[in-house]
Amino acid sequence: MIFHLLLLMLLSDVGKSSASNITALEKQIFHYIDENQNKFVQVLKEWVAVESDSIQPKYRQNITQMIEIAKDKLQALGADVCIINLPIHQQQDDQNSALPPVILAELGKDENKPTVCFYGHLDVMPAKKADGWETDPYILTERNGNLYGRGATDDKGPVLAWIHAVEAFRLQNLKIPVNIKFVLEGMEEAGSTGLEDLIKNENERFFSNISYIVISDNTWLSKSTPALTYGSRGNACFAVTVEGGVKDLHSGAAGGIVHEPMSDLIALLDSLVDSSGHILIPGIYDDVSCIVEEQKKQYEPIAFNLTEYKADVGVTTLLYDTKEDILSHLWCYPSLSVHGIEGAFHEPGIKTVIPRKVIGKFSIRQVPDMNLTTVETQVKQHLRDVFAKRQSPNKLTVEMTLGAMPWFADSREPQYEAAKKAIKKVFQKDPDMIRDGSTIPIASMFEKITKKKVMMFPIGASDDGEHSQQEKISRYNYINGTKVFASFLLEISELHKD
Amino acid sequence: MIFHLLLLMLLSDVGKSSASNITALEKQIFHYIDENQNKFVQVLKEWVAVESDSIQPKYRQNITQMIEIAKDKLQALGADVCIINLPIHQQQDDQNSALPPVILAELGKDENKPTVCFYGHLDVMPAKKADGWETDPYILTERNGNLYGRGATDDKGPVLAWIHAVEAFRLQNLKIPVNIKFVLEGMEEAGSTGLEDLIKNENERFFSNISYIVISDNTWLSKSTPALTYGSRGNACFAVTVEGGVKDLHSGAAGGIVHEPMSDLIALLDSLVDSSGHILIPGIYDDVSCIVEEQKKQYEPIAFNLTEYKADVGVTTLLYDTKEDILSHLWCYPSLSVHGIEGAFHEPGIKTVIPRKVIGKFSIRQVPDMNLTTVETQVKQHLRDVFAKRQSPNKLTVEMTLGAMPWFADSREPQYEAAKKAIKKVFQKDPDMIRDGSTIPIASMFEKITKKKVMMFPIGASDDGEHSQQEKISRYNYINGTKVFASFLLEISELHKD
Repeated sequence: MIFHLLLLMLLSDVGKSSASNITALEKQIFHYIDENQNKFVQVLKEWVAVESDSIQPKYRQNITQMIEIAKDKLQALGADVCIINLPIHQQQDDQNSALPPVILAELGKDENKPTVCFYGHLDVMPAKKADGWETDPYILTERNGNLYGRGATDDKGPVLAWIHAVEAFRLQNLKIPVNIKFVLEGMEEAGSTGLEDLIKNENERFFSNISYIVISDNTWLSKSTPALTYGSRGNACFAVTVEGGVKDLHSGAAGGIVHEPMSDLIALLDSLVDSSGHILIPGIYDDVSCIVEEQKKQYEPIAFNLTEYKADVGVTTLLYDTKEDILSHLWCYPSLSVHGIEGAFHEPGIKTVIPRKVIGKFSIRQVPDMNLTTVETQVKQHLRDVFAKRQSPNKLTVEMTLGAMPWFADSREPQYEAAKKAIKKVFQKDPDMIRDGSTIPIASMFEKITKKKVMMFPIGASDDGEHSQQEKISRYNYINGTKVFASFLLEISELHKD
Repeated sequence: MIFHLLLLMLLSDVGKSSASNITALEKQIFHYIDENQNKFVQVLKEWVAVESDSIQPKYRQNITQMIEIAKDKLQALGADVCIINLPIHQQQDDQNSALPPVILAELGKDENKPTVCFYGHLDVMPAKKADGWETDPYILTERNGNLYGRGATDDKGPVLAWIHAVEAFRLQNLKIPVNIKFVLEGMEEAGSTGLEDLIKNENERFFSNISYIVISDNTWLSKSTPALTYGSRGNACFAVTVEGGVKDLHSGAAGGIVHEPMSDLIALLDSLVDSSGHILIPGIYDDVSCIVEEQKKQYEPIAFNLTEYKADVGVTTLLYDTKEDILSHLWCYPSLSVHGIEGAFHEPGIKTVIPRKVIGKFSIRQVPDMNLTTVETQVKQHLRDVFAKRQSPNKLTVEMTLGAMPWFADSREPQYEAAKKAIKKVFQKDPDMIRDGSTIPIASMFEKITKKKVMMFPIGASDDGEHSQQEKISRYNYINGTKVFASFLLEISELHKD
C-alpha cells in the first residue's frame, strides 16, 4: 500500500513536471481548442459532405466547390488567398477534365519570423455505400469516438486541424508566432496533376522565403503513439493493355479458336510477383539500398503491434513474422500490387464474354535508390519478354500511368525537433520516428524543386483506413492534432529565437 | 451476243425450274411476308426497345413486361396462352429476384396433324452504349440493310420470325398445316433458371403430344449460307473466390507484407489454360469423344471462310490454320475462357487498392461425352492443388455457378429433312449441317426430359454479334427467316402425309 502511494506520488510528479513545460499561452490555446471541438467536428462534417473524388473526372466540379469552401475559410482567418488555375488537362475520351485550381495562401509577412508552409489536399478517393460502408461515406458519422467518412483522415481532417490551429491564435487575438503559408490542392489522389509545374512557376515567388514545408497526409504507425515521418515509398503505376479483335466475342462462338486477350493478360500479371511477395521483374532490386542489421535495430522501440495490426486488417498471417521484417518490407523494400482489370466482366453474375480489350492495373512502390526511368524500362522489357514467349497475335501496350519518386529526409533537422517537443506536450509521449510505405509524391517533389526542408507530421491513427471502407479519424486525434499543430508553431518559433 | 442470249435463257430456265418447286400457297405466303416486312421490322423495333436484361436482377420487371407484350401478340394470332409463374428465386444479396413468368401457348389441336413446338427467349444480355456501341443498343437502327440492336438476333428477331410465319397463314385465313406450340422464356441468358422444373411439371401435359421441338437461338456458320444445327457444346461456369482480410487495403500501407488475394486469384486463373488454348486441368480431356479423320472430312463442304471470319472478328491469326481444325475445336473439343474479375478495381484511371475479396469468373464449354459432375470435381481439385502450393492464408472458394450439358442429335431425322427443303426453296442453297460451339442448354434439357426430337434452326448470320457490341440481324435474314419458317411448317406437314 505504501509502495502504491509512493508510486502514485511519483507519477503525479511526472505529470506535473510534464505539465509545467506547457506555457500559459499553450494552456490558453489548448483550452480554446477543447472548447470549440464540436464546432471543429461540424466543419469537418461540412467538408466531408462534398464528394470531391478526383479519380472520376465527373466529380471535378465538386473539387472546385471544395476549393472555394477552403478559400472562404482561409480568408475568414485573414489570409491572402490566391486561386491558381491550372491549364486544361489533355485527356482522351473525357470532356470534363478541366483541373480544379490550387490554393496558395499566406498569413503574416514578418521577415524576423520563420515561414512554415503547410501542404494538404481537398480531394478524396472514390467511395460508395455499396462498396461495403456501414455509414454513408459522405455523411460524417460519429460512433464510439470515431468520425467516419471519406476524407476524414485523408486529408480533410488534417487540413482543418492546421487551419483551426491558426484560428486558435487569430480568434483569440494572439500573435501567430510564425508566418504561415498554405498549399491546398485538389488532385492528390489522382497523382497531383499540374502541381509540379505550379511549384516550378511559383518557386521564385511563393516558395522563395519558406523555412519549412510540413505535410500532414499520412498516419501514425500505431493506434496510440504519435509519429513523425522522414521517408515514404514512391509509386510507379502501370497499365498493361492486351487488345485482340474488333469486338467482344461470345465464348461459345469463339472459345477454343481465338487467342483470348484475357489469357494473355492473366499470364502477364501472373509473371510479376510470387506468392511470397517477391517481385519477379529482372533487375528490379538492383538499386534498392542495402538494409543493414543496424537499421533494423532502430525499429525496435517503434510502437507497432503485429497482433493488433493483424486483427485490424483481419488476417491471421502476414508475409513476415517479426516487427523488424515487417517494417523493413513496408519502408525499405519495393512491393508490387495488382489492383484490377478494366474492360473485362466485373459485375455479379455470369457473362460468357471474351473481352476484346483488357487493361491490367498494377503498381510498384519503389524505395531509395530506385530510379523511375529504370523501373519503367525494366517493367516494359519484362512484360514484352513474357508476352513474346506466348506467341500471341494480340497487341500489347504497357504504359507507366503515374510515376512518383520515393522520399527520404534527415530526421535530426530542427523542424523534427520542434515537432517532437509539441508531441511530447500534447500526447505526453515521444513520437515513433517512422517512414511510410505509402507515397506522398509531393514530399519529394517539394524537396526537389524548392530545395526546402520537408517534414511529414501525421495526426491520424494506423487504423484510420485511408482509401478503404470505414475511413475515419478519431475525435481524440482530430482535436489533439489541432493542438499539436498549434504547439508546433510555437516550438519552431522558439527554436529560431535560440 | 448470241452466246449471251443463250446464257440468259439458260439462267432464266434454272430460275423457273427452281421456282417451280415453290407451290402457289408458298408464293402467296412469301408475297405476304415481303409486303409486310416494314411492319415486321417495326415490331422488332418495339421489342428491342424493352431492356429485358436477365443478367442484372434490377431489370427483371422489363422481362415481365416483354413477356406481356409477347402474350398479347400470340393472343392476337388466336393462340391459347398460359402465363406460368415460376417460384421465387432464392438469391443472396438481392431482393428483386422474382423470376419472370414463362409463356406456354398453343394454336391448333388437330390430332391428324403433327405438332411443332417452337422455343425462343425474350431476355437479352446486358448492353450499354458506353460498352462501345455505335448506336443505342435499345433503339433498333437500320444501316446498310442491317438491323442493329440488343436482342435483334439473340433472340427477339428469330422469335418474331416464327410468330410472323404463323401470322402469314392466319391473317390470310389460310389453314396452318400443323399444330403449333410456343415456349417463350425470359431467363435464358442467365441459365434458364426455373425452366427445367417447369418442363418436368408440364411433361405429361403440354409436352406430351409434341412431334418436334424447334429452337432458333443460334446463327449460321457463314454470312450467306443457311445452316441446320445438330449439336451444341455445354457450359460449366465457375466462380473462384479468394478472400483476404476484413477490408480493402492501401497498397502503400500494406503492399509487401500481406498475402494479396488478387495475386492468388491471378495465379489460379493463370493455371487453367495455356497460350495455345489447351486446358491445363488434369483429366479434363479424358471423356472427350475421339475425333477421327472421317469426321473432319464432313466439314469440307461447309461454308466457313477462314479469311472472312478473321476479318469479321478483326484478328490476323487464329489458334489453328485449317477449316477442319477450327471447326473441330469449336464443336468437338472443350474450351476455357476467363471472363473477368468481380471485386477488383475495374474503372478507368488509377486506384492503388489491395481488394480484400476477388471473384474470378471463367467457363468451360464441354463436349460429348464429358460429364458435368466430373468436370466440377476436376476443376475444384485442380484449383485447390494450385492454391495449396502457394501457402496463402487467404480463403479459397470454388463454385460451379451454372452447369449446362452438351447436346448432339441425329441429323438424318425427318425434321432436318423438312428444314432442308424449306431452306432450298427460300435461299436456293443446301444448308451447312453444323454443330454450335455455343450452348443452348435447353436443347439437351428438352431432349432429356421430354424425349422428343430437337432441332436447332438458326436464321441469323455468323457476323450477327450475339452478346457483343453492334449485335444485329440483317433485314434479308429476318424476312427470309420468316419465309423459311413458314415453308418448314408446310414441309413437315407434307412429310407426315407420306
